[in-house]
Amino acid sequence: MNLYKKLVVEPGSKVKLKKVDASFHADYKDEEHAKETLAKHVAKIGELQRKLYGEKKHALLIVLQGIDAAGKDGTCWHVMNAMNPQGTYVHGFKQPTSEEKAHDFLWRIHPHTPGLGDVSIFNRSHYEDVLVQRVHNIVPKKVWSQRYEHINNFEKLLKTNNVTILKFFLYISPEEQLARFKQRLDDPSRQWKISESDYTEREYWDQYISAYEDMLEKCSTKEAPWFVIPSNHKWFRNLAVSEIILKTLEDMKLKLPEPTVDLTEIQHKYHEIIEDQNKPSK
Amino acid sequence: MNLYKKLVVEPGSKVKLKKVDASFHADYKDEEHAKETLAKHVAKIGELQRKLYGEKKHALLIVLQGIDAAGKDGTCWHVMNAMNPQGTYVHGFKQPTSEEKAHDFLWRIHPHTPGLGDVSIFNRSHYEDVLVQRVHNIVPKKVWSQRYEHINNFEKLLKTNNVTILKFFLYISPEEQLARFKQRLDDPSRQWKISESDYTEREYWDQYISAYEDMLEKCSTKEAPWFVIPSNHKWFRNLAVSEIILKTLEDMKLKLPEPTVDLTEIQHKYHEIIEDQNKPSK
Repeated sequence: MNLYKKLVVEPGSKVKLKKVDASFHADYKDEEHAKETLAKHVAKIGELQRKLYGEKKHALLIVLQGIDAAGKDGTCWHVMNAMNPQGTYVHGFKQPTSEEKAHDFLWRIHPHTPGLGDVSIFNRSHYEDVLVQRVHNIVPKKVWSQRYEHINNFEKLLKTNNVTILKFFLYISPEEQLARFKQRLDDPSRQWKISESDYTEREYWDQYISAYEDMLEKCSTKEAPWFVIPSNHKWFRNLAVSEIILKTLEDMKLKLPEPTVDLTEIQHKYHEIIEDQNKPSK
Repeated sequence: MNLYKKLVVEPGSKVKLKKVDASFHADYKDEEHAKETLAKHVAKIGELQRKLYGEKKHALLIVLQGIDAAGKDGTCWHVMNAMNPQGTYVHGFKQPTSEEKAHDFLWRIHPHTPGLGDVSIFNRSHYEDVLVQRVHNIVPKKVWSQRYEHINNFEKLLKTNNVTILKFFLYISPEEQLARFKQRLDDPSRQWKISESDYTEREYWDQYISAYEDMLEKCSTKEAPWFVIPSNHKWFRNLAVSEIILKTLEDMKLKLPEPTVDLTEIQHKYHEIIEDQNKPSK
């Protein structure tokens, strides 16, 4: 099954998250069954990212969004693992500071977009400004409703610089979220990740779903598509994300640059040195 | 004469710079005649900028463009002079570095846009990317021709954050430019400002004029208007720029914020302390 085609939000289409099965896992039986494919994807991604870095003609921006406990951190870790840290950057966007609030909402985002040769991963992103800010009425509708267009314009601008954008919405069911919170509570090493708001935010589940649906419908474009990743199974989430990244890197037709020095000449010099060394000393 | 109306480039209108008199000076006879008005403008601008800074509900971005020796530095100096340096920033954009070139053309601009309460002055700007880059074929037409739309989208974004944008194109005649180069040559303290390119760039005068005309036509919008400032007379240039800035600040209806403390209470406390001090010591 072509997971890119299966999971992409076709530009202009309607999105009903209720109809999405968060436990979907395509033709794969279980984690064990998917293991080999995943390992192959990871190896190929690493190879292509080195080419991307060397060629410096493309850039890749990966945006991760999802409700609390959907697996954004885990996905970051998984994607980073496949790549060379040189040329790969993760940036997490928290609540805006007062300096950031004094500017337009894309001001704090723009400096972290990748330059040619680089990969940036956004753990949360400019989409927070049409999600939490909308659900909690932090800004009025008049303001957030205009942001979809600004986001599309901004992403179009990045595209002019050969930045390819992949946006992953990690989708889990409310039951799965609760199960994950429970796991955190039971795990002393992860208890620190829990805040009261994790639970209070659950009351806004439906409003978040509406906001996600709007984001997916209004901002999935040919240049910067959204993918809905069924994420109840972490192994399938990782498989799907890596398959989509791999296909995208393959489509770039990356090529390492030609050497800028004359390799025959260097080889020749090298042989001369070796010969010199091997001469019997007088 | 309303200089704002007279000099603004009406959105959608055609611009023929040949028809503009670079020596125009409205109803003012000479520098002496304009002196008093200019001083009044400067004083009022200073007052309003302090309100802008205190209120933190608006921001002002002033963009200066013009051919070499048109007076960008002088205008910066003049505008800065009217303002409190706290909350006023000048940023000059030179040839892009290799890091800047690895990003989209607005990447290096965005971080310098003003936050609420601030004034930013751009000495050259993102418009260089449709001027020098176009005239010298640094990027192909396919690239620079798309930039006008990206610029308009970007400036619209800034507007959502209450950034008012004023763009001044300082226009001098080729004869005036030559006279100014000559003055620099004759002045040992300013000879360092001369480069060979000052003279070689003159060969591209007509191409620059076409590029300026396109920039003015395509990017003068209601949100972020361009003004063509006749700049052969430095005193008129300063007068016109300050009148337009003043009108813009006045239209913002700026108000200093209400005190957040109870002034009567503070006054009361103050009196108590004074009385205590005046009591004869035992």
